[in-house]
Amino acid sequence: MIRPLISLLTDFGLRDPSAAIMRGVILGIAPDVELLDISHEVRKFRIRDGALLLWCALPYLPIGVHVAVVDPGVGTARRPVAIRTGRGDVLVGPDNGLLLMAADRMGGITAAVELTEAAYRLPMVSTSFHGRDVFAPAAAHLARGVALERFGPPVDPVGLVRLPIPQPVPADGELRAHVLYVDTFGNVKLTAFADDLVQALGALSTGNRLTIEVRRGESGARARPVELAWRETFGEAAVGEPLLYEDSYGRLCLAVNQGDAAAQLELTEDLPVVIRCTG
Amino acid sequence: MIRPLISLLTDFGLRDPSAAIMRGVILGIAPDVELLDISHEVRKFRIRDGALLLWCALPYLPIGVHVAVVDPGVGTARRPVAIRTGRGDVLVGPDNGLLLMAADRMGGITAAVELTEAAYRLPMVSTSFHGRDVFAPAAAHLARGVALERFGPPVDPVGLVRLPIPQPVPADGELRAHVLYVDTFGNVKLTAFADDLVQALGALSTGNRLTIEVRRGESGARARPVELAWRETFGEAAVGEPLLYEDSYGRLCLAVNQGDAAAQLELTEDLPVVIRCTG
Amino acid sequence: MIRPLISLLTDFGLRDPSAAIMRGVILGIAPDVELLDISHEVRKFRIRDGALLLWCALPYLPIGVHVAVVDPGVGTARRPVAIRTGRGDVLVGPDNGLLLMAADRMGGITAAVELTEAAYRLPMVSTSFHGRDVFAPAAAHLARGVALERFGPPVDPVGLVRLPIPQPVPADGELRAHVLYVDTFGNVKLTAFADDLVQALGALSTGNRLTIEVRRGESGARARPVELAWRETFGEAAVGEPLLYEDSYGRLCLAVNQGDAAAQLELTEDLPVVIRCTG
Repeated sequence: MIRPLISLLTDFGLRDPSAAIMRGVILGIAPDVELLDISHEVRKFRIRDGALLLWCALPYLPIGVHVAVVDPGVGTARRPVAIRTGRGDVLVGPDNGLLLMAADRMGGITAAVELTEAAYRLPMVSTSFHGRDVFAPAAAHLARGVALERFGPPVDPVGLVRLPIPQPVPADGELRAHVLYVDTFGNVKLTAFADDLVQALGALSTGNRLTIEVRRGESGARARPVELAWRETFGEAAVGEPLLYEDSYGRLCLAVNQGDAAAQLELTEDLPVVIRCTG
Repeated sequence: MIRPLISLLTDFGLRDPSAAIMRGVILGIAPDVELLDISHEVRKFRIRDGALLLWCALPYLPIGVHVAVVDPGVGTARRPVAIRTGRGDVLVGPDNGLLLMAADRMGGITAAVELTEAAYRLPMVSTSFHGRDVFAPAAAHLARGVALERFGPPVDPVGLVRLPIPQPVPADGELRAHVLYVDTFGNVKLTAFADDLVQALGALSTGNRLTIEVRRGESGARARPVELAWRETFGEAAVGEPLLYEDSYGRLCLAVNQGDAAAQLELTEDLPVVIRCTG
Repeated sequence: MIRPLISLLTDFGLRDPSAAIMRGVILGIAPDVELLDISHEVRKFRIRDGALLLWCALPYLPIGVHVAVVDPGVGTARRPVAIRTGRGDVLVGPDNGLLLMAADRMGGITAAVELTEAAYRLPMVSTSFHGRDVFAPAAAHLARGVALERFGPPVDPVGLVRLPIPQPVPADGELRAHVLYVDTFGNVKLTAFADDLVQALGALSTGNRLTIEVRRGESGARARPVELAWRETFGEAAVGEPLLYEDSYGRLCLAVNQGDAAAQLELTEDLPVVIRCTG
């Protein structure tokens, strides 16, 4: 007797009642679901942040319906969609790239529809709160077992909007990547994975010395590279010492033991970095 | 087999454990309830904010028991109350105006009592945490089906404390209103509704030009009016452009497409505004 | 048919998905549990804050499994542990002092084990996210009824890490204590309890005048003492007036009626204070 799972991720914030209203709408339609909030504090309008957080979370969540709303284009022609994954999840949200990193990771897209069927929306659909009027009701009806195909016309997965995320470039002796995300600890997550680093520099052992060159703008003076060590874990670095490590998702991450790496190393999203080994 | 719903709204914040303690007390008495947090990040002591957020949320929540605690007068003579609404909800909290906007919207007040009965409080009642000691236990016992009348003596609804909220004034060719609330996107919600604007200015179409005159203090120089357009939705405005629209609750709202209107237009709660049409 | 309770407390923050991932891992193993978040906004790395919040919360929560993760030493030799309390709870987390204030309060430690058994961890254990890989799975298996002894070798409670928390010193005519915690209202909680104050100064009545001398550093000029009154509750003080009162946990607390005492009195954690009665 397991309750079907619906997870929620938005940039609505926890002060305002929007996230709670989505939960209320869902419980009004499907009282027996298990609700799980992934985050409602995604930075406003940051679709890529939301996409990454979904990508991180979904492999650790039970199969379910996952609603995500970071939606600067609400009320425009952008499509509301539901996407079935290879694992059996259904992802619900705007067609703006938010859902696809996670869909790819959960076994790829096996079907997608545009959410047009009025029977699975609230009676009144506002122009600014589709989380409440379109996405939450769709998720609740999906959790009750309504077939995906009944929500609207099929969508060709090839036509879904994809976010432009620069790919890491492993070259001989260096790895080029970008800052993807700074978490609430100040840890700096890169677009590259630990596997990319091995491909570029060979296998590393804890304590190997690296330089991180940060490209801070075309005309600006090139800053001095950051010198730090490859570490298996935070605790191998002294308190306050920077390190590069493989985070718990396999991603390369710059950190400072018990400190804030983004602040200490002055790193922000989208900066390009070049990693080289010096010993 | 639907679990009874208890919703919670407080200004206790999410760092401290007070909200969780209320949940714990409720589950200890009524283990089978469905708990739904509307918000615990209401700004400290802002009764009107809490009242508005309840007003927004309740129509979208299932019928249930709704506990709200924004309670600067805790420990004084202000009464703890429970209020039954026309829809069948019970609202629980301090008699300081917090509950009445929502109660009016949910069908009005059909009964009210003062929460005096010791059997439905914790054994020890502190002077500073009635959320834990009085309101959470009352909500849990209500959700278990204890009749409202058993919690204490009836209260005349006319005597319940009401918040002073200035009414919008539609006049010939202008609408006078006040800033009611700034949400976490920086959207500026007014005391007036879209219907009030129609009454004052006639029906508007997207793109109609408006001026918003802001009265920033009696003796201060009158600031230049804000010029903007009426829009059906954010996306009709250019990114960074201000707009006036009907929010998803029917209320007039100043916004900036993908921006922070309160910051950009320097608007804060309680400022009086006058809206006129210029074409 | 009561669902077993698992509570969660971390410093992971609510923007990132780490707390939700712990919930997802738990629901994957034990779909029928009731999850209760105590806080995920404990300040980063502040073990003592987390210990205090657990101490506050647990007496008001049903008996259950309580997972806490404030873990600057993750990935080092610090032990992952589970501790059974006299009341029947099991506390799960790192052996760094986080769990013991609460364990002491819940009837003391009746058994403890190190969490080493691979069958009750995720298949891959990262070096930086034991909340997901070690603690959440352990909590879920405990909630399903797996015996504590099966998780790993017993640990001598005497050897568990304890936080150094200075004890209050009631002397004749004065009470010496320290600032323990500032809550989100700006209320300043001390290491001493109301009972300590009675022991030092005798019984107090509301309105009794006190001085609070704050020792702001060895060589610094001694600041002028704060003058304030003992109060039974906030509302007995004028708005903006400071007071000392017994908080809802029995602890001494400096507050300002409807204000922020920490900001107004310039108080921060760990400052020593001396309280004397002046009338």
